[in-house]
Amino acid sequence: MPLWKIYHPEDAFDESDKRALSERITALYNRLPRFYVGVIFQPVADHSFYVGGEPRRDFVRIWIDHIARTLPDADMRTRWIALCDEALAPFIKERGFSWEYHIDETSHELWSIEGFRPPLAGTADEARWIQENRPSPVLPR
Amino acid sequence: MPLWKIYHPEDAFDESDKRALSERITALYNRLPRFYVGVIFQPVADHSFYVGGEPRRDFVRIWIDHIARTLPDADMRTRWIALCDEALAPFIKERGFSWEYHIDETSHELWSIEGFRPPLAGTADEARWIQENRPSPVLPR
Amino acid sequence: MPLWKIYHPEDAFDESDKRALSERITALYNRLPRFYVGVIFQPVADHSFYVGGEPRRDFVRIWIDHIARTLPDADMRTRWIALCDEALAPFIKERGFSWEYHIDETSHELWSIEGFRPPLAGTADEARWIQENRPSPVLPR
Repeated sequence: MPLWKIYHPEDAFDESDKRALSERITALYNRLPRFYVGVIFQPVADHSFYVGGEPRRDFVRIWIDHIARTLPDADMRTRWIALCDEALAPFIKERGFSWEYHIDETSHELWSIEGFRPPLAGTADEARWIQENRPSPVLPR
Repeated sequence: MPLWKIYHPEDAFDESDKRALSERITALYNRLPRFYVGVIFQPVADHSFYVGGEPRRDFVRIWIDHIARTLPDADMRTRWIALCDEALAPFIKERGFSWEYHIDETSHELWSIEGFRPPLAGTADEARWIQENRPSPVLPR
Repeated sequence: MPLWKIYHPEDAFDESDKRALSERITALYNRLPRFYVGVIFQPVADHSFYVGGEPRRDFVRIWIDHIARTLPDADMRTRWIALCDEALAPFIKERGFSWEYHIDETSHELWSIEGFRPPLAGTADEARWIQENRPSPVLPR
């Protein structure tokens, strides 16, 4: 459900960094099936990322889509942003990278995993997906 | 209008696969001008795609933006997802890949092709774009 | 705030082109802090971009997210699209590329730069961010 695309300088992260960072991101969504959380690392070559018209080699730009849940109010959005910053800090802020991210929220009804339309929040089907950590047939809506 | 970005393992598809899959995707939108349908194949290197914190080499993740049309109700959204699964199956499910996709719907008014703002659905201008399969001047809105 | 992702043929732009084009894009947003404007150039290999099922080598496809501002009405959206076309023309239309772009508008509240949530439009905090061209602590909302 959440899809994180991480645009980073080519040598910013090694394999163990990427795995550890994706685990931290997955942990943010501990009420969802773990397999909902997708993270794509995408290296950006030199002279291919610009901020304010200036080339940057030290910038990590993250674009996130949320699909399974929407954050219901301003307080929850504030709290969520703080949690994201905390999850990212060891691999980004504490390594001296600059960073920016933003989140879009898209329709639960326009989403499919392995040919299944994911169950609604709080249903028995979702509980089973969480427990089994894999998709399986769901009751029709 | 629809833009499909297909994140896939590096060796998942050859040229003829990519062409055939893009043709199947284009056929989904048979009420639109063919040239509205854009498909970008983007290889993801090993150790750069994670699901639930685990690296995956067998996963195709697709992100779709719809611009020219919105799906008007839950039944149409259900039907559309089934059609997408069917279009993708020969190159993804039947080859043993796991897959997930989601669709966002964005504003018709914030869209431009070759300097033209695409015509509204059902107009004579759109009929001409379909017939000619290329953009051309449209009446002001 | 605005993030522009430019999918282009591999040899379309050299370093000075990319810098100049990103400067033109940044200038579109002259009421915002310059550092809000991110541009990522992403080369697309041959046989990896299809329009209407046909492979294209001469196409520039741009995907834009607006975060800091929304365009309030149809007139402003029309005007904005014209400004974008003008900004892009010297590097795209005038070089014989085909092109298409679309813009999504996402939530100001789901956005973070360097650990700060960007200030609201028209605030003293935003004026300081513009003047200093860097993020700094803002008043709580």
